[in-house]
Amino acid sequence: MAPALVAKGCKVLDLSADYRFFDLETYQSWYGGDRADREIAATAAYGLPELYRDRIAEASLIGCAGCYPTASLLALSPLLKQGLILSETAIIDAKSGTSGGGRQAKTNLLLAEADNSLGPYGVGGRHRHTPEIEQVCSDLAGHEVRVQFTPHLIPMVRGILATVYATLRDPGLVREDLLTIYKAFYRSSPFVKMLPGGTYPQTKWACGTNLCYIGIEVDPRTDRVIVMSAIDNLVKGQAGQALQCLNLMMGWEETLGLPTMGFYP
Amino acid sequence: MAPALVAKGCKVLDLSADYRFFDLETYQSWYGGDRADREIAATAAYGLPELYRDRIAEASLIGCAGCYPTASLLALSPLLKQGLILSETAIIDAKSGTSGGGRQAKTNLLLAEADNSLGPYGVGGRHRHTPEIEQVCSDLAGHEVRVQFTPHLIPMVRGILATVYATLRDPGLVREDLLTIYKAFYRSSPFVKMLPGGTYPQTKWACGTNLCYIGIEVDPRTDRVIVMSAIDNLVKGQAGQALQCLNLMMGWEETLGLPTMGFYP
Amino acid sequence: MAPALVAKGCKVLDLSADYRFFDLETYQSWYGGDRADREIAATAAYGLPELYRDRIAEASLIGCAGCYPTASLLALSPLLKQGLILSETAIIDAKSGTSGGGRQAKTNLLLAEADNSLGPYGVGGRHRHTPEIEQVCSDLAGHEVRVQFTPHLIPMVRGILATVYATLRDPGLVREDLLTIYKAFYRSSPFVKMLPGGTYPQTKWACGTNLCYIGIEVDPRTDRVIVMSAIDNLVKGQAGQALQCLNLMMGWEETLGLPTMGFYP
Amino acid sequence: MAPALVAKGCKVLDLSADYRFFDLETYQSWYGGDRADREIAATAAYGLPELYRDRIAEASLIGCAGCYPTASLLALSPLLKQGLILSETAIIDAKSGTSGGGRQAKTNLLLAEADNSLGPYGVGGRHRHTPEIEQVCSDLAGHEVRVQFTPHLIPMVRGILATVYATLRDPGLVREDLLTIYKAFYRSSPFVKMLPGGTYPQTKWACGTNLCYIGIEVDPRTDRVIVMSAIDNLVKGQAGQALQCLNLMMGWEETLGLPTMGFYP
Repeated sequence: MAPALVAKGCKVLDLSADYRFFDLETYQSWYGGDRADREIAATAAYGLPELYRDRIAEASLIGCAGCYPTASLLALSPLLKQGLILSETAIIDAKSGTSGGGRQAKTNLLLAEADNSLGPYGVGGRHRHTPEIEQVCSDLAGHEVRVQFTPHLIPMVRGILATVYATLRDPGLVREDLLTIYKAFYRSSPFVKMLPGGTYPQTKWACGTNLCYIGIEVDPRTDRVIVMSAIDNLVKGQAGQALQCLNLMMGWEETLGLPTMGFYP
Repeated sequence: MAPALVAKGCKVLDLSADYRFFDLETYQSWYGGDRADREIAATAAYGLPELYRDRIAEASLIGCAGCYPTASLLALSPLLKQGLILSETAIIDAKSGTSGGGRQAKTNLLLAEADNSLGPYGVGGRHRHTPEIEQVCSDLAGHEVRVQFTPHLIPMVRGILATVYATLRDPGLVREDLLTIYKAFYRSSPFVKMLPGGTYPQTKWACGTNLCYIGIEVDPRTDRVIVMSAIDNLVKGQAGQALQCLNLMMGWEETLGLPTMGFYP
Repeated sequence: MAPALVAKGCKVLDLSADYRFFDLETYQSWYGGDRADREIAATAAYGLPELYRDRIAEASLIGCAGCYPTASLLALSPLLKQGLILSETAIIDAKSGTSGGGRQAKTNLLLAEADNSLGPYGVGGRHRHTPEIEQVCSDLAGHEVRVQFTPHLIPMVRGILATVYATLRDPGLVREDLLTIYKAFYRSSPFVKMLPGGTYPQTKWACGTNLCYIGIEVDPRTDRVIVMSAIDNLVKGQAGQALQCLNLMMGWEETLGLPTMGFYP
Repeated sequence: MAPALVAKGCKVLDLSADYRFFDLETYQSWYGGDRADREIAATAAYGLPELYRDRIAEASLIGCAGCYPTASLLALSPLLKQGLILSETAIIDAKSGTSGGGRQAKTNLLLAEADNSLGPYGVGGRHRHTPEIEQVCSDLAGHEVRVQFTPHLIPMVRGILATVYATLRDPGLVREDLLTIYKAFYRSSPFVKMLPGGTYPQTKWACGTNLCYIGIEVDPRTDRVIVMSAIDNLVKGQAGQALQCLNLMMGWEETLGLPTMGFYP
């Protein structure tokens, strides 16, 4: 349907994975199926405004970013773009509320099953968001990047936290250096909120908003940086981010109509 | 009080951190205070039976292992003992229910604050369980080991999941090799349950039991092993494990009086 | 299947509603269908041991009591049996965890839907447990009794609380009188725990046990008694109570194999 | 402080119980203390706009209604005002999320204590909201009314559900009659949403809004009406309602700045 709409001159924001991949071979190896819309797919922009703002503004078709990739990439991008880490050391340990699994009636998502429990899934690079994350990481780094991505299901309704680990290329870097670099990187990104040193994000802070809260820590004992990002998977991780893309496509204020005040408690 | 009791010939199981450290300097740098009980402290065994069964059996004083160290060390030990990983790559991303924080009335642990939210704390090696984990890792590896340990607070009552990442020394190892090694390592440990390939632990499975469920995955794309362990922080992570130690000290059956049937759902 | 098993001499404990009704017309008007097993149905005992201990001991077929009826009837029975209340004033406001709805994948029982929400259903005597409660109430009172029964779905896994309201026939009765009467009524019922005056039951206290905790309050301003009962819907409200019936049928100790220690916290 | 502010010409909205009572003797018998501000207290309006809109508009001092009284009175008022029930039969079984208890660190409100449990408190007319509810009921009915009010603590963050029971004076009344009466009663009340017959409120529907959802059922077998109301205790039950009062005091649109779109899921 997206191709027909684009052909008619509509601007299309696709929330599925159909137009997220730069390379349709990757898409097919993970999602299967044959694609008759290769030409139009090639015109799609990846719908993560903080990284592809200009391309989104000019595109007619957006493959809106997945929820896990949104949280993961916002945490990891400045490090890769600036070449600050040994990219092969990047590990993303992600945690999501159960609404990330959609509203289908699945036994494992029943309150009586999922409440008061916690577990990983798609371990070892088997989750479909892995190639989506890696293609953007590779694009930013300028060379192919493999990340270790492990999602976990958490007994709560909304929210994603990504805890990202990587080894610093330059062991002399301290937390404040990285905070400065991140703030510069997201200077023009109104929805990314960098937390002060020593403060780490709680998913509830982002609840109901289009914000992404990011905290940074450096462990001088291990030369590792730990970046933590929190989003609301149903807003910044889904519908809100689509609206943010729409604002860019229409030349409107990027923040138009998008909430920034958390629903608390 | 422990010294006086030991002097009187009592067997003492201490649930605090007082007797967990092989080296009291480490204790003091994390917990402060002066120690007048150095002599007796030197006789204490570290209360993690799967690793120190013989020493526990002979000791009069046990420094019972912390909840996070229990989950983390049971996941990590076989890899370190057998030299299967590059030890400096070990990362422990741990998640705990709020009962791990004790029963004190703290605002951040109120249901209205902690429910439907998730966040890290003690990031960058700042949590007191870091040195406890590292001393045992070093003991097993035979050289000093630094791990990256990050705890997270999860909106549930009980349970800890540790997701452990490390790079394999020999990239040729596959999941089944590691499962075989783990099963051998825990051959005489009735409370460790190795999960079949492709199955990952949920904390609820261990709820109410003294068990530790362990799942293993290998990612051949990254040469990394991911080990996931789940325990009930109030049983295997605390009182249950103390009883397990007591059984060993008294020469009783190790499993005596300890539950292995999960409370589900 | 139950008839065939009984015919073969088996003792049958049926957890469905099939054999709960003294009068099959009532069954059919609520559950529909035709019944070819009227003769055998007439021999069934209602599986609520505290009220029908002797009949259960002699029966070969038990229609095990529903979860809501168990909590409701244990709270209400002494009042009706002793004629202490105006029976037409009896109101049961019941609250249940979502496991009461079974393990089927229903959208409204998903964690993302049911968590952090609460609501009534089957209001106005429309829930199938209403006739089950009323037949026993009528049996105890010796005349037809109508009760107001309203179930509510609560965002938790296990537990039922029934808050029962009724107007006292004799306004001179005080809380202690009623406590004395209840204790006498349940003198031989090891699973009913009467709470001291001023203490009210929490469902968690019964969690994992076959117990029913009962608290009583009298409001002298309104001449009303309020009785509150808490059970674990999956134990006393289901499988545990079936075992309790089995113990009686076999002439075993009534408490055999049944837990009385709560799972806390 | 309120008296000083009023004296200076400020409009004061007091969220405590200080100015909720028409009769200070009632206040003192429940809250204790001596009151030096009797004169100013006598000028206060009770801050429940749906019932005291005109008085609020003219007042300088508002004693904002409590959370339980708001839910209870909106459910019960039309019945009492129109004399449709036997007032002495009114029972309010109320259920509240734990944020209703405030943000103080109390052990019983810890997630590890309160989650997965449910219980009553203040049973038998002992909760401080009882006299507050009764004074308004009496005011509406034109004679002294006693209600049975029982609050329950529910394992969720926000929301109150009041399930109200009363015997109809005229047994011929059906659900649709009552729906018509309620709609007329709340004709000018933009925040009260009457649900269609057969639909009952879920607290989540009101979450984040200043709305009160009301559902009605009649049980012809018992001549009883059951009214169910759901609010967000932190909005309509607290700060939102204060703003609604402020709008009336200032002559602004009553709905100004107040959310009506629920936070879901």
